[in-house]
Amino acid sequence: MILHGYFRSTASWRVRIVLGLKGIAVDQRAHHLRRGEQRLPAFLALNPQGLLPVLELDDGTRLTQSLAIAEYLDEIHPDPPLLPAEPAARAQVRAIAQLIACDIHPIQNLRVLARLNAMGHNEVVVQRWAADVIRDGLDACEELLRRYEGPWCFGASPTLADATLIPQLANARRFGAQGDWPRIAEIAAHCATHPAFIAADAGAQPDAE
Amino acid sequence: MILHGYFRSTASWRVRIVLGLKGIAVDQRAHHLRRGEQRLPAFLALNPQGLLPVLELDDGTRLTQSLAIAEYLDEIHPDPPLLPAEPAARAQVRAIAQLIACDIHPIQNLRVLARLNAMGHNEVVVQRWAADVIRDGLDACEELLRRYEGPWCFGASPTLADATLIPQLANARRFGAQGDWPRIAEIAAHCATHPAFIAADAGAQPDAE
Repeated sequence: MILHGYFRSTASWRVRIVLGLKGIAVDQRAHHLRRGEQRLPAFLALNPQGLLPVLELDDGTRLTQSLAIAEYLDEIHPDPPLLPAEPAARAQVRAIAQLIACDIHPIQNLRVLARLNAMGHNEVVVQRWAADVIRDGLDACEELLRRYEGPWCFGASPTLADATLIPQLANARRFGAQGDWPRIAEIAAHCATHPAFIAADAGAQPDAE
Repeated sequence: MILHGYFRSTASWRVRIVLGLKGIAVDQRAHHLRRGEQRLPAFLALNPQGLLPVLELDDGTRLTQSLAIAEYLDEIHPDPPLLPAEPAARAQVRAIAQLIACDIHPIQNLRVLARLNAMGHNEVVVQRWAADVIRDGLDACEELLRRYEGPWCFGASPTLADATLIPQLANARRFGAQGDWPRIAEIAAHCATHPAFIAADAGAQPDAE
């Protein structure tokens, strides 16, 4: 399998964490988002959306959307599980992942910020947009996560929620989003000790700048 | 179970379609988004994100995020299935749902458009923002969907992809998004004949205006 990604892409980062948790080795190919490599014809043939990550299977099938890829990896390699067994608990884990992957990340990603730039907004305004979106999302995330025991988002083992939360926190720092998130801080400190999270970090990738 | 929704909320609409496909009856409570009822303390106690839908289970558990709710309903009521059996095929269906639920809908929803208004953009600019986001997303969606046979998004039966696509098309019409989407048009025409899609339509809800 080949994971097409970019060191700073938080969606690619989620998949790197999942691969690490599962102990699955893949080839990695970097596509430089800031240089627009995701809009090249060769990349658009992989994913017409022009977004990372793409997981290319050995038979040539291309999977897109990080959470769909994560669940695929969970289904072909169920141990250790990314989701609890009970349906309502699975929904709660998926809801945290989707809160971040639907309601925070896409609204502060490169495409949207570039559109704001093109509308005449300066860097200060654009950074504040990103910081506000991340703060609002993490405020809700913190409140939801306080309902569950630690040290991970959901109890005694890492799930899809942790794999989605950690990369988003890098964007929170990058854009200066600030809030009162003690539960999230505890989870982040715990994840920082786990090999899969250490290996998946943006700064640990070969294409990191 | 109680589904907290709003007739025009495309995320609530997705869940209504899934409930119809599964033949699951629930109580429905409407929360008027345009009047800001999702920001009232009573609603925030249900979902600190202040977003619809929320599925309230009989034991009081509250599930948020429409795709997580849809998969919950699929897990507690597996027949008819919302996803195919094979892992890569499941990932492709989920990817279409997430393309819409992550990369189109949140960027054109009420919160983001209200933020643009507050930044001084007039209605023409805001509508164009929404139309552009929807067009770009549906262009990619069309190209991906052409890889699969009809009449549904994925072959001979409706999936989570159809349940996510149809509500987004209502927003495409509302914001004047235009494109060359013959495959999507065929799917929409097919869905329009199915009782679950007819019953879930925004215009068919008790709170429709």
